[in-house]
Amino acid sequence: MDLKPLIRPQSIAIIGASRDSQKIGAQILNNLIRSNFMGKIYPINPKASAIQGLASYQSVIAVSETIDLAIIAIPQPFVQDAIKDCIQKKVGSIIIITAGFKETGEQGKKLEQDIANQCKKANIPLLGPNCLGIIIPQINLNASFGTQLPKTGNVSFVSQSGAFGTAVIDWAQNNNIGFSLFASLGNKAVLNENHFLELTNPNTKVQAFYLEDIVDGRRFMELSSELTKTTPILLLKPGRTKKAQEAAKSHTGALAGQDDIASTALSQAGVLRANTSEELFDLIKAFSFIKELNGNKIAIITNAGGPSIMATDALESAGLQLAPLSDKTQSDLSQYLPRESNIHDPVDLIGDAKAERYKNALDCVLKDQSVDAIIVLLTPQTSTEIELTAKYIIDHAKNTTKPIIASFIGGSHVEKGLKLLSQNNVLSYQFPEQAVNVLGRLWEYKQKQQIAINNHIIPNLSYVPNPAHNKLLDQAKSSNRTSLNQDELEELLSECNIKFPAKKRVTSPENAWQNAKELGAPVVMKIASSNILHKSDSGAVILNLYDQEQISESFGQLQKILKNSNDPNGYIYLQKQLPKGLELILGMKRDPVFGPVILIGSGGIYTEVYKDTAEMIAPLTKSQGQKMLESTKIYNILNGARSQQKYNTEVIIQAILKLSNLAMSYSQIKEIDLNPITIINDDLVALDARVIL
Amino acid sequence: MDLKPLIRPQSIAIIGASRDSQKIGAQILNNLIRSNFMGKIYPINPKASAIQGLASYQSVIAVSETIDLAIIAIPQPFVQDAIKDCIQKKVGSIIIITAGFKETGEQGKKLEQDIANQCKKANIPLLGPNCLGIIIPQINLNASFGTQLPKTGNVSFVSQSGAFGTAVIDWAQNNNIGFSLFASLGNKAVLNENHFLELTNPNTKVQAFYLEDIVDGRRFMELSSELTKTTPILLLKPGRTKKAQEAAKSHTGALAGQDDIASTALSQAGVLRANTSEELFDLIKAFSFIKELNGNKIAIITNAGGPSIMATDALESAGLQLAPLSDKTQSDLSQYLPRESNIHDPVDLIGDAKAERYKNALDCVLKDQSVDAIIVLLTPQTSTEIELTAKYIIDHAKNTTKPIIASFIGGSHVEKGLKLLSQNNVLSYQFPEQAVNVLGRLWEYKQKQQIAINNHIIPNLSYVPNPAHNKLLDQAKSSNRTSLNQDELEELLSECNIKFPAKKRVTSPENAWQNAKELGAPVVMKIASSNILHKSDSGAVILNLYDQEQISESFGQLQKILKNSNDPNGYIYLQKQLPKGLELILGMKRDPVFGPVILIGSGGIYTEVYKDTAEMIAPLTKSQGQKMLESTKIYNILNGARSQQKYNTEVIIQAILKLSNLAMSYSQIKEIDLNPITIINDDLVALDARVIL
Repeated sequence: MDLKPLIRPQSIAIIGASRDSQKIGAQILNNLIRSNFMGKIYPINPKASAIQGLASYQSVIAVSETIDLAIIAIPQPFVQDAIKDCIQKKVGSIIIITAGFKETGEQGKKLEQDIANQCKKANIPLLGPNCLGIIIPQINLNASFGTQLPKTGNVSFVSQSGAFGTAVIDWAQNNNIGFSLFASLGNKAVLNENHFLELTNPNTKVQAFYLEDIVDGRRFMELSSELTKTTPILLLKPGRTKKAQEAAKSHTGALAGQDDIASTALSQAGVLRANTSEELFDLIKAFSFIKELNGNKIAIITNAGGPSIMATDALESAGLQLAPLSDKTQSDLSQYLPRESNIHDPVDLIGDAKAERYKNALDCVLKDQSVDAIIVLLTPQTSTEIELTAKYIIDHAKNTTKPIIASFIGGSHVEKGLKLLSQNNVLSYQFPEQAVNVLGRLWEYKQKQQIAINNHIIPNLSYVPNPAHNKLLDQAKSSNRTSLNQDELEELLSECNIKFPAKKRVTSPENAWQNAKELGAPVVMKIASSNILHKSDSGAVILNLYDQEQISESFGQLQKILKNSNDPNGYIYLQKQLPKGLELILGMKRDPVFGPVILIGSGGIYTEVYKDTAEMIAPLTKSQGQKMLESTKIYNILNGARSQQKYNTEVIIQAILKLSNLAMSYSQIKEIDLNPITIINDDLVALDARVIL
Repeated sequence: MDLKPLIRPQSIAIIGASRDSQKIGAQILNNLIRSNFMGKIYPINPKASAIQGLASYQSVIAVSETIDLAIIAIPQPFVQDAIKDCIQKKVGSIIIITAGFKETGEQGKKLEQDIANQCKKANIPLLGPNCLGIIIPQINLNASFGTQLPKTGNVSFVSQSGAFGTAVIDWAQNNNIGFSLFASLGNKAVLNENHFLELTNPNTKVQAFYLEDIVDGRRFMELSSELTKTTPILLLKPGRTKKAQEAAKSHTGALAGQDDIASTALSQAGVLRANTSEELFDLIKAFSFIKELNGNKIAIITNAGGPSIMATDALESAGLQLAPLSDKTQSDLSQYLPRESNIHDPVDLIGDAKAERYKNALDCVLKDQSVDAIIVLLTPQTSTEIELTAKYIIDHAKNTTKPIIASFIGGSHVEKGLKLLSQNNVLSYQFPEQAVNVLGRLWEYKQKQQIAINNHIIPNLSYVPNPAHNKLLDQAKSSNRTSLNQDELEELLSECNIKFPAKKRVTSPENAWQNAKELGAPVVMKIASSNILHKSDSGAVILNLYDQEQISESFGQLQKILKNSNDPNGYIYLQKQLPKGLELILGMKRDPVFGPVILIGSGGIYTEVYKDTAEMIAPLTKSQGQKMLESTKIYNILNGARSQQKYNTEVIIQAILKLSNLAMSYSQIKEIDLNPITIINDDLVALDARVIL
């Protein structure tokens, strides 16, 4: 879809332009005129001949010239007719500002879908409905009912909440931050986040999003992995909790999906997720102002011990370190600093430091090759020269490629200094921990960018399903079954080299005892039935069977359960009971937004208790599979913690990759759950398994 | 120690007062005069006869009137003589501003101790050295070299970092926050945080601290548990990481101790620990402005869907809930709000809401008895009336006991509104998540306060040691041993009802085989020696022994290890090998700052991997022991998760309490480590144990 008429319009029609300044249509027209938009503007209003000094038209059809963009701001019942006119007129793009569609329930949803289908058929990009509009400062375009045209800059911000968008613009104004594009997505009937990820705008240095849902997760991942090679992508996406998801649904009709999977997918695709609105603001500012962080060694320069300790504390969890200052740097520092100061990192200039001391310390530390970035801390003490210090920081920041971040802690005294820094595009925050967190996320981006450049994201392989297994799955599905039976899943999972304990089907108490003797005690007796998914919870597993009496009794019990399960293909079987080893869980789940997700971690009775699992979106590379396993806590045990037995982790990684392939090959499978699965010698043996279709 | 001369001085001498305005002594004198201090001021300077219009004295001894407070601001080498003069003059209190003591190394530390001892002997309270001074706005006292006298108010702030203190004062000025007291502790040679916890100041509504270490942890806990019944205590204490602890040491010579134990102790004593400097600022403001939060049901009123979703998301982890608005409230709301708005919580007034809509919604929601507090969110949209909305919020806040917190998100447009709110003591933050977090911590305080009032903190019991066990421990200590041997610890731990598997001492391979047959296979062979603490790691435990050959061979192996351990009292023994059950860890460690700490959690090979343990400072009440166990993840398994076996948790709680008593009774014990310990029927059986003296 060609977005050019939307983002570079030469002519705009405002359907719903009005003389009543309270009307949204009037506000949009006013914004377009006030922002000195250079193209043509056509107010559309059947009841007026001129509005705000411009000739007005009955409808878009009455305009004889081409219309690149039609903005619809009329009551909901009239929107559909306006769309018909726009399609007839062949406008280049449409924005529907009007609300009252998907977010209000079934009827609104139907109407919205209808409009979306018409626009798609006519190949017209549609932004909204229920949105604020679009703003592109570079071409003086304020096609929104937001109050202000922000300054031109390098931030592209795409928001599913128009109101939050206005807050971001207002904040940006105060922080000397400009925009290459601002778009409000609203209900995303046609255009969504992915269309804006596709835009390559050379003026954009950072692409930020506020999203309540992601429409096509896999496309979002593909596009993000590509864009992140050159441009950091920031995302604030609330909806971690059920209550928040409900609120989102009534806001933009968003269906947020499972949040942990979204987090995994976003991280895998190189997207930096902001945890709070404040962090989003902090990160937009950081990526807009700063070029690159090339390492994680941070020098701190301070006039106050306390705040430098706070900053030092925050470094570790941000993945950063204090810089080991060279002997040269230390001896240089000692020439300029009084005896009581600290010439190691954090460099403490002590409380009576004037601006000159900051300048000299910056000189020395910037030259040190082991320093990747500098945090300058300042508290307003009696001798502190706040503005002059700010000026020196600005001078240094202009003459270095290393990020310099200032944190001036206080209130009215430090305000001017902070303002001066912002005005000169020097990154500054009120709190030391903010500065550290931002550097940590810059470093996180650098690493994600590298992974993306090395194409370690979403390998593009082709998957050839085994025809027999494909048939097996198709047959099960076509007979309306929702799961595979034990024999079928053992056959299918042989593709992943998953082994199962040998089982002996038994038909009577006597026959069971006969087989048990052959296996050797203890044995375990189970039911195989696709109607019984949670075997243990259903009483379909009996452990620790040694003698004939126990075995006869157990057979009787299971026979009753089997009968109640109404599965003519079900049967009872025996297995040798294995000694209790390390129990893992290995699984796959198909997420509606992001597709197949692979899971590995601690299994057995510990699964729910420790929730020690790692997830990743398939398909996976080997290094991803390895990273995934390594990120679980149980990996330490597998790897032989405390001089215990070391397990063959290669076998597990291979199983992860093969399960990933399986998920990609057979779209019929909805879920695979191997729990517990244990390692015996060099085999992965599943003690319980289910495959859901 | 009487602090009255320090906090209510009638007469002050400044030792080091100077005409050179760059000197700290000159700045302090200037501050005292500028702040209109009403008492007498005596500049002390042997080289001047008058300074800043006041008669100057050769020394404090030359002043004929009483001196309540002597402030010393002269170079370090002259401080000791000044102290001598002060003691001779019998001044009421001393502040040493001068730095260069404990924080600089051994020599400085010795000098500081010397001065401290002199002051203690003379019963003179000494603040500092290496500090900023003290400020008490109510009596116009700015006895510091901070630049400004903050306004009178209800915040007491005591800071181990003077510079951070100046930042807090500067910030407070901007946020309409006043102080009942500000003190800079410096190196805490005599006066420390506990002396300020002892002060009962009716003007103080919130007691905040910045501390790098806590001098006497148990006293701090006692005083905090008492004060928290009436006054919330906030603490920012960095030093979570090793690097930050090193930085703290060079700052104020602080030795921070183990951070997780400090966290446990603080929480137990009712102290609210701020996680970042920003959170400390947020909390000081909240507790200074707001009376009480009496429940956790929060109503959100908003003109923007996005921010209300962010707030809703944050509620859960803050321990809060959306308020279930009554039918009455909802029908009232629907009368005032347009059809598209949301009359459930979060109440969405939608984007075109003017101030009137906020006012009406506040009216309705405030009346709802199920609402404990309200968050008002605002984004600057075209129709938004920011200042008028602020005014309505102020009106409502004045006429209710329920907390109302505003979050106006944006920049220049919302600034005036935020300022107006602050000026009228209405709590406001820029970000919705900040507002939620603050309410969560207000609710946390309410609960901690209740526990303190019910005297559930540090029960005051007496502990009677068993004379035989006392003797056993004394003898072990006096023979310079650092641990108990197996027999001794089994005897001692019988006090906690801890059982041990029956052991058979064996003296030869033949004798071992004989005993093994009696126990029944499999057996485990171990060494008992107080020289071998980590049995498994030292190879002093051999499992799974079935036949004579294995047993002979193992005996040989262990004999060698025993020989190398050089313990004439060591021996080899056999135990029946128990089936692998649920493994716990139960332990005690004596922290140098907070005393005995009890620990319970997942044990065995999982100890280090899952770090699933809970700690509490002894002595413990039963409800604390229970809460501790319940806060571990393994509790879910003990409690019969997923219809598995349910364990007798009462036995574990009893053992926790008895271990707590043991720790209180025998100060000789440094550490007890029972890991793994398992539950067999109704017994706790320790499979490995050590007691360190």
